[in-house]
Amino acid sequence: MRRYNCRMESVKALVFDVFGTVVDWRNSIIREGRELGKSKVIDVDWAKLADSWRAGYAPAMDRVRRGELPWTPLDRLHRTILDSLLEQFQIRNLSEAEKENFNRVWHRLSPWPDSIGGLTRLRRRYVLATLSNGNVALLVNMAKHASLPWDCILSAELVKKYKPAPEVYQMAAGLLDLPPGEVLMVAAHKNDLLAAKQAGLRTAFVPRPLEFGPGRNADPGPHTGFDIVAPDFFDLADQLGA
Amino acid sequence: MRRYNCRMESVKALVFDVFGTVVDWRNSIIREGRELGKSKVIDVDWAKLADSWRAGYAPAMDRVRRGELPWTPLDRLHRTILDSLLEQFQIRNLSEAEKENFNRVWHRLSPWPDSIGGLTRLRRRYVLATLSNGNVALLVNMAKHASLPWDCILSAELVKKYKPAPEVYQMAAGLLDLPPGEVLMVAAHKNDLLAAKQAGLRTAFVPRPLEFGPGRNADPGPHTGFDIVAPDFFDLADQLGA
Repeated sequence: MRRYNCRMESVKALVFDVFGTVVDWRNSIIREGRELGKSKVIDVDWAKLADSWRAGYAPAMDRVRRGELPWTPLDRLHRTILDSLLEQFQIRNLSEAEKENFNRVWHRLSPWPDSIGGLTRLRRRYVLATLSNGNVALLVNMAKHASLPWDCILSAELVKKYKPAPEVYQMAAGLLDLPPGEVLMVAAHKNDLLAAKQAGLRTAFVPRPLEFGPGRNADPGPHTGFDIVAPDFFDLADQLGA
Repeated sequence: MRRYNCRMESVKALVFDVFGTVVDWRNSIIREGRELGKSKVIDVDWAKLADSWRAGYAPAMDRVRRGELPWTPLDRLHRTILDSLLEQFQIRNLSEAEKENFNRVWHRLSPWPDSIGGLTRLRRRYVLATLSNGNVALLVNMAKHASLPWDCILSAELVKKYKPAPEVYQMAAGLLDLPPGEVLMVAAHKNDLLAAKQAGLRTAFVPRPLEFGPGRNADPGPHTGFDIVAPDFFDLADQLGA
């Protein structure tokens, strides 16, 4: 067991980035895509489609951030990106219900192997909440589908601003009625953690080198500037004494 | 088992009033009050204090509803009422930390005997959320303390208006991404249900005749105008096929 990090003694709640940090969106989408491909006789590179779908995510949120689009929940942004990918990959035999169901694959993503075990340990000692750009319904359905043991669902949707807007991190501390320094943001993405740190939260970096597929480590080291760096949620629980 | 109510087939999520409907605030406060009285040698009628505390609740929210007070989370309203009750009951030997801890008795209320078992059954089939005037942190702490199996914590705090404002019920359906008619409001209080019905939600009345103590049934019959009337959460689960 890793030694308990006593500088974290004041932390009361952990808030988690979700896509990539808690769940493995890429393999989940590839798996459902292949199933859909089998039943509808669609022969495309589902890994490429998954990567393109995710690649459309940041630019779509940027349009909301810049005010070119009014507030739009992530489910709707995902659907807009999907519609253009269906064109691009020449998938033309899906009904509206089939498209809408495939768009909701984001509600059915699978956790990383350590996620549920680690969260279950952490939950004994801390309040655990999501803090995701996913909309509330998406996060609720995902938690139910994957048995993620959250105490509370917090989402960018509650302030109608996407991370890394400071209002999102401030909202989390505010609704949990804690000073920001008693809230630890856990994420696999450094930009998310740097924004959380700016807002006064503590930070834990949990790299997920396979998030974007093998050989494409998105967040190479050195991993400095965070309160905690942990290879997985079990190690995070060790360091937090949970 | 009560016959399944097939008119409720379209319902996807249940949202619950909490104080009085899910938890027994009165006996919880009396019990903690007596413990406090023992340790601090305070001899007062704790049932009377509990009833006075709850009686201050509606007038305090009314001041927020009328705009005489800016938005104030329920924890703060409870504290204001408590401070005046400590005067009234001549309790003068509590430190600030002891007052604040006693104020948080609302985070530690005990469920009615059928609450956890009934909710656990209902959760297999439905999304379950709170829809309470309690602030988010209060509801999160209460759920953790009492092991209430919510999928999501929804609170009046998210729209900064107290029930029965229509925005609260609309917010619940909106964040769950459901048409109001697919959301069932469960409460022991008819005014809450009538407001939910006005906002298009389905309604289930679960009377809690002991909420205000023996012999003071707050909501006498007839119980008409609701989609479901159930004596407890087990019966509610029967009627909903869960």
